[in-house]
Amino acid sequence: MRAIVSLNSGSSSIKFAVFALDADNRPHHTAGGKFERIGIAPSLVIRTDAGEVLEERAWDDGAALTHADLLEYLFDWARAHIAQGTILAIGHRVVHGGSSFVAPRRVDDALLDELESLCPLAPLHQPHNLAAIRSLARLAPEQPQVACFDTAFHHAMPPLATRFAIPRELHERGLRRYGFHGLSYEYVAQELARIAPALARGRVIAAHLGNGASMCAMLDGLSVDTTMGFTALDGLVMGTRCGTLDPGLVLHLQTQEHMAPDAIEDMLYRRSGLLGVSGISSDVRALREDGSAAATEALELFASRAAREAAGLLPALGGLDAMVFTAGIGENDPAMRAAICQRLAWLGIEIDPAANVANAPLISTPDSRVALRIVPTDEERMIALHTLHALNGTAHKGQAPEGEL
Amino acid sequence: MRAIVSLNSGSSSIKFAVFALDADNRPHHTAGGKFERIGIAPSLVIRTDAGEVLEERAWDDGAALTHADLLEYLFDWARAHIAQGTILAIGHRVVHGGSSFVAPRRVDDALLDELESLCPLAPLHQPHNLAAIRSLARLAPEQPQVACFDTAFHHAMPPLATRFAIPRELHERGLRRYGFHGLSYEYVAQELARIAPALARGRVIAAHLGNGASMCAMLDGLSVDTTMGFTALDGLVMGTRCGTLDPGLVLHLQTQEHMAPDAIEDMLYRRSGLLGVSGISSDVRALREDGSAAATEALELFASRAAREAAGLLPALGGLDAMVFTAGIGENDPAMRAAICQRLAWLGIEIDPAANVANAPLISTPDSRVALRIVPTDEERMIALHTLHALNGTAHKGQAPEGEL
Repeated sequence: MRAIVSLNSGSSSIKFAVFALDADNRPHHTAGGKFERIGIAPSLVIRTDAGEVLEERAWDDGAALTHADLLEYLFDWARAHIAQGTILAIGHRVVHGGSSFVAPRRVDDALLDELESLCPLAPLHQPHNLAAIRSLARLAPEQPQVACFDTAFHHAMPPLATRFAIPRELHERGLRRYGFHGLSYEYVAQELARIAPALARGRVIAAHLGNGASMCAMLDGLSVDTTMGFTALDGLVMGTRCGTLDPGLVLHLQTQEHMAPDAIEDMLYRRSGLLGVSGISSDVRALREDGSAAATEALELFASRAAREAAGLLPALGGLDAMVFTAGIGENDPAMRAAICQRLAWLGIEIDPAANVANAPLISTPDSRVALRIVPTDEERMIALHTLHALNGTAHKGQAPEGEL
Repeated sequence: MRAIVSLNSGSSSIKFAVFALDADNRPHHTAGGKFERIGIAPSLVIRTDAGEVLEERAWDDGAALTHADLLEYLFDWARAHIAQGTILAIGHRVVHGGSSFVAPRRVDDALLDELESLCPLAPLHQPHNLAAIRSLARLAPEQPQVACFDTAFHHAMPPLATRFAIPRELHERGLRRYGFHGLSYEYVAQELARIAPALARGRVIAAHLGNGASMCAMLDGLSVDTTMGFTALDGLVMGTRCGTLDPGLVLHLQTQEHMAPDAIEDMLYRRSGLLGVSGISSDVRALREDGSAAATEALELFASRAAREAAGLLPALGGLDAMVFTAGIGENDPAMRAAICQRLAWLGIEIDPAANVANAPLISTPDSRVALRIVPTDEERMIALHTLHALNGTAHKGQAPEGEL
């Protein structure tokens, strides 16, 4: 067996997936796992694609275990269970590629140093991404690693869409709109090209609605605008993040409420969004179950702001041919999709209630002027595809023919 | 003669207008004036409606002169030139009425104290508004004064439109979306009802594009959404203000660039927007004349962001019947109107180039699915109308019949 491992190292979790390559170099998901609650009481589960548990562990008194410790544990486990030479390369999700890195890159020391210099642009995410790469480089110096950037897909955006109305000099120093969830959008664009090629060449809004949430306006499969800007805080309401917020309110919290920057950061990243508005939960399922006025208000605000953001993307597209829902909420919450589409009904959008409730691939009525689709995202597979191609020294081209996926 | 004086006291200027009342209590603008460059080298001009200069003065070494000093000068001038008893009342623009004050209010000490408590919500504007009221109350304790709130018109917005996705408790303490330019929108709504009553009952976006800029979505003449939120910093690109900005960027400026809050505030209010992006000027006319790449980019960003914000208001309206341009840029810059409309062409908007260049009242083609209009705003007259009605103990009703305007 030859395999590619995809790795996504976050602040309190590490997700990974193993893709076996067939004779034609097509990746097939075979196993995956996750470390959770890192820094509190880490746990690990590894499962095969068939659901068989390969490994399950919890470190109840493991608050002191670092990402590096846990990666070493995983590395040892892999060495014991996977034949040497099997893993061709490890691909990493790296949140920020800055203005320079617009395609996946094979990792070397020079690249790591350059990516390190981007940490101030994503201080909550980038250091964890890079720490995982460095850990594995120490454990297996010969193992090829590839960095795949969440910002890269948005490199196609026209210059105006990258600009904030702040002094030029700041823009030139990198304080600009980058956009995120790029690996998800790229996968969705490729899937749409496979499933509905004519639509994929048109004016599409992809809505990545998960615990993090954003939208991307795509013309012919390329990003022309997106709702996240400089950080992962901007745009839509999220599970615990505020999304778009009057910048004057951030200043107010400091100057009038005397909150320290780290307290504001903690509040806007971890105690806002659905959780903050409801006061109950960041989880859409929990809020639907709760059904209280505050829970309902949080869900309605999510839908209302999502519709507002989607409409705001229309000038970049010049209208709309299709809207594609993906990620946890996008794939699994019919009520949220219906609420968003209802607020966009003036566009000629008509959702098919039965198809919607069934989470069907096509959820618009035949008469709808805009096609509505659900396309499950798979960022891990996108990372594997990029990693494989970077390894072969060829760029993975968007909209690959079906065989290549 | 009986007259009402409208007064708008800002950080570095005080504008005022005198409206004579005819036998039917209709206000007629008779004279107006402005103190400028307060705190640097104040100057004053007062002109009649016919253009005759009644008073002209400059204090080249008057950096120390306060708003109170200049208002006292104005008061003395008025006493010498206007017969006693002529001025029935002075109406003030007060930027913030908070959640409680949803209609103009006759000023008394209790009201002033309540309005004082709102200063933290608009620290750059509210204190100047209130200082002017207090100065005049000292000079003429018997003179009725009326506070007219820039937030009041947006009181009609549905609760969801007032909410940020931040912890509930902050919303309940007043950290919410208020919206501004309300006196301008109210005037425009009334004018539209007079000029095109059927349109005014429909789905309208009013675009107040001046040095400060915002948009308001109106249904049947009432505000249902707006682009400014908690402060005057949010929404559209402005002359020197940034408009919508990733809240994470504000945090970044502090934690990574180590800027103090007041330096960030100064930058986002006074050195951003058209000025910041162009590096040249905050004035659209100067940028058009300059014609450099940076000037053009600033103007294009203004138009692009304006179209994005306008589109974002459409879900609140469920489509669009009319778009109304007002204020300095909105009334006088055909190229900006054309650029915004071009990015909204997918809505079926068609601008009439000749009418647009002529700044005509109706600038859409007969085939346009959306009517495009220019309605010059007159906040001073709106203040005078409100003041007159507050004086008579009756609320000035929106959409008054023509006779009453």
